[in-house]
Parts: sequence; structure tokens; C-alpha cells
Amino acid sequence: MKGIQIQGVEKSFSKRKILQELDFTFEAHKIYGLLGRNGAGKSTLLNIITDRIFATSGQVIVDGEVAKNNDAALSKIYLSSEMNAYPASIRLEKIFKMTELFYGDFDYTLANNLAKQFDLDLQQKFGKLSTGYRNIFKFIVALGVPAEYIFLDEPTLGLDANHRDLLYQSLSTSYIERPRTFVIATHLIGEVASLLERVVVIDQGQVIINGDLEDVLEQSYLISGPEKEVSEYTKNLNVIGKERLGKISSYYVYGKLDDECFLPDVVTIEHLDLQQLFIHLTNPRKEQ
Amino acid sequence: MKGIQIQGVEKSFSKRKILQELDFTFEAHKIYGLLGRNGAGKSTLLNIITDRIFATSGQVIVDGEVAKNNDAALSKIYLSSEMNAYPASIRLEKIFKMTELFYGDFDYTLANNLAKQFDLDLQQKFGKLSTGYRNIFKFIVALGVPAEYIFLDEPTLGLDANHRDLLYQSLSTSYIERPRTFVIATHLIGEVASLLERVVVIDQGQVIINGDLEDVLEQSYLISGPEKEVSEYTKNLNVIGKERLGKISSYYVYGKLDDECFLPDVVTIEHLDLQQLFIHLTNPRKEQ
Repeated sequence: MKGIQIQGVEKSFSKRKILQELDFTFEAHKIYGLLGRNGAGKSTLLNIITDRIFATSGQVIVDGEVAKNNDAALSKIYLSSEMNAYPASIRLEKIFKMTELFYGDFDYTLANNLAKQFDLDLQQKFGKLSTGYRNIFKFIVALGVPAEYIFLDEPTLGLDANHRDLLYQSLSTSYIERPRTFVIATHLIGEVASLLERVVVIDQGQVIINGDLEDVLEQSYLISGPEKEVSEYTKNLNVIGKERLGKISSYYVYGKLDDECFLPDVVTIEHLDLQQLFIHLTNPRKEQ
Repeated sequence: MKGIQIQGVEKSFSKRKILQELDFTFEAHKIYGLLGRNGAGKSTLLNIITDRIFATSGQVIVDGEVAKNNDAALSKIYLSSEMNAYPASIRLEKIFKMTELFYGDFDYTLANNLAKQFDLDLQQKFGKLSTGYRNIFKFIVALGVPAEYIFLDEPTLGLDANHRDLLYQSLSTSYIERPRTFVIATHLIGEVASLLERVVVIDQGQVIINGDLEDVLEQSYLISGPEKEVSEYTKNLNVIGKERLGKISSYYVYGKLDDECFLPDVVTIEHLDLQQLFIHLTNPRKEQ
């Protein structure tokens, strides 16, 4: 079976549970958004999947094989993160070659082409790059490796809007030319949303959403109107947040609406975008 | 006259011109977006305005007075940026008091309230904060000072979507309660846009846009259709970018449309959002 299965994965540091029994699958040939607040456990999960740190319990299965200590399985996975630091004195071109030694056939044509588009001189040494260009370079390496599962942890850190736009376009083009799995962990939810097919939301070490982006957005609602009518209409719904502006109350809802329930004229229903949904799902509940 | 006037400001490092004769005004009681690519000169400009570095020529006038070496004028300006580093061992509460010594009346009520909302413990030492919380703390300090002109250089660096949302809301609320000038330099153009009244775009050391956001967006167009019709319709317009997808050409235009020109049915016109406009205005022109 193709895909990466996370089976009962838990992780504790000291006595704190960082990840609590995660069970889900990254399916093959999809673009995923992996979303979570700072400290939610995203990076820990990525490091467990790529065998950089051990899970306290549970296991990761890659295309049917246990990944732990399994070089063949692990070579199918590539993680690009803050932790990929290369020696400062090495030229970028050389790093492509080093990467090929570990991961096999490197796509030099794609990498050279991307370097040109991003205006990145490959004769430079890694240590000379700005934060933005370091991340651009790591992204180019990630697209060049032949791995089937590419994890990108905050790939747009330090990039200006133009370079972020080019990065999203390049990822999309490369995915169409060679379908594989991308998992993008990012805080810039609004602008990455249009790239994603599936979305996994981690909150306090648990997966609280795992679904097709379209289905997820389909059941995300902003319901507004006078407090009395809105609270009546939403009384059996999954309300994830509330706001009030003057006489208008806005309730954020995730889940199915109640078709039986009468909708008064003064109440309006809109859909949320992914970033709004995420914020309301993961905000700590306050007493209303 | 209220406001900050930038008069003929130039800056060179070695022989490279970073800023080329800037002439414009930050008006009082407005929220500005200061937008530019990495390396465009934004931070250099902010450092000149706050007298942290010298201009090669030109001057900065604050409410009618030359700012250089003028403590009274400079105390009206507050810049929050990467450069505000506090000693690691100082508690956050203490930093409020230190700030008050320099800038006068500090708004402790607002600052304590914001700290609570952001879940930031003010008994902590500065050195213990994560990147995100460092920037949250600096933002709280910036809102607490009584200065009339607040410059925020990338205030959302390291913040997750929830905290960015809360930051934008807090800024907006504080601005309504005590109108003053905010200048926000940021790469997250899409999500900051709804806060802004005015926008200044710097490209390669020059101001290429300075206007009301509404007016700027009003003259930003995406014109799409078959290549022949689109290129004919736009031939006298200010085309800032072109894209092609299959048989459809999309031209990005900034400026007035030609009312005399016949618009064929097959050509559609939409408005751009600020981030799209920015990207196309500041992308290096390629041969088409």
C-alpha cells in the first residue's frame, strides 16, 4: 500500500506529551498542508517520520514497510527544514552533488532552471546566503531529489511576496510534471491554500482535521445576525468561535448545518477561508 | 505642519546607491503599509528616519522640525525592528519601565492587557522568549509608548496565524482609541492590506507608489482574453506584467484605462489585490 501511515505515534519530552497517539495516513501523490500553531507538534512529527528523533511509541510505515532504521524506506522521504544546515564554505553546486550521493538521481535540469528563475548564483558558498536565499536553495534541493515524499517545513521563511509566489508556482509545476507527495508545514495558510489538495491540522499534539480541502471548507461557516436568532439557529451546531460587533453576533461553525432548523431572514451564512477556519479551530476557548 | 517629510533623502553604501532621492510625506494619523522586496531599501529608510544611520544627503522633517540630532523631534518617533534587542537577563516588566524613561508615559494598562491576550508572562526574562514571542513583546512595547509615529519593521516574524490575527486586531483597536501614525513594513501584504489606509511601495531605492490604498487598487487591473484582443486593448496602457495559460493571455495593468478604446466581449477586466499588484510592479521585467 502506497503512502505514509502514522500508527499510534506518541512523543513525550520529560513528562510532557508533545504528540498523543496519532493515527492517520499521508496518501501518495497529493499536496498536503500540515497546519498547527507554534508548539502544536508539527516539527516533532516531521522529525519522527524522517527518523531524526524516536517516537515514544507507535511506528511509521512507508509504502507498507516500517521506516525505522530502514534505509530503503527512508530514502523515499526527504525533509527540508531549519535543521538542513550545510557547511558555510561549500558551493551550492557541490551541495547538489552531495545530495545525489545520498538520495540518488538529482534533477540538475530542474535545479539549474529554478536557480535561474530565483536569480540565485550556484557558484556562491552556502554561508554567504541571506535567510531568504538559504530557504530558496533548500527548496530547490528538495525539488531536485527523486524522493516520493517531500516534507517542507516553513519553506517561505524570509522570502518576499514575489519569491513566495514563484515558489508556489514552481512547486505546482514540478508536481504536475512528476506527481509525488508534498507535505507543506506553514503558518502562511491564506496564501498556500490554493495549492493544497488535503489538509491536516494538529492542535496540542492531536490531529483535529484530516481531509480534502474542499470538503473541509464546505463545512466551515460564518453565521451572522442578531444574537438571539444566531444563538437559536446554531444551538445544535459545532460552534468553534464567537464575535460580537455592535448588535451583530458572528458565530464560527465547523460541521454540518441542521437542515431541519428554520433560518430567519436576518441571519446570513457565509463560508470561511482556510486561515479563518484554522484560527477559530485552534484558538483557546474563552468563556463567552 | 504635522507629518514626517522625507526631503531628498539619499543613501549610498560604498558606491552602491541604496536610496535615490526620496521625497514624500508620512501624513499624521494614518496607517501606512511600507512595501518593498528584500533589499529594496525599507529598513535603511526606517533607520534614517529614526536617526540610527545618516543619510548621504537630504533630511527628515518631523512636524515641521529637522529630526537630525533633535531629541524633541526624535522622541515623537518609535521604531520597532530586529535591532531592538534587550539584555537577555531583564524581565519584561522592567523593560516597560526602561522604555518609559526614554519615551515618557507608558500605557501600562494597554500593555498588561495585551500581554494577557497574547498569553505572555511579563515576569519572564527577555532571553527566554521564542522568536515569535520576542516580536509579540516588541509590538506590545511599541503600542505602549506615547510616540505619535510608530514604525513596525516585520512585526509578525515567527507568529502563527492566530497571533498575527490578534496583532492586527490589537493595532486596529489601539489606533481607534488613540489615533496616531503607524507605518508597517511587511512581506505579508495579502493579510495586512485590510488594515491599511495608505501604501508606499519602494523598489530599488525609489518610491514607485505613494497613495491611498483604495485609489491604488482602483487602478490595478487584470485584463484577460485571447492574446490579439488583449494586446490591442492594452496597447496604450501601463502594462506591468503578462502571463499566458493555453490560449488565454493575462495582462497586469497599473493606471487609468482608455475609455475611448473598444472593449471586445472576449476580454474580461478584474481588479488585482494589493499583493498581486505589488508582485507584478516589482518583478524584474523579462523579455516577453
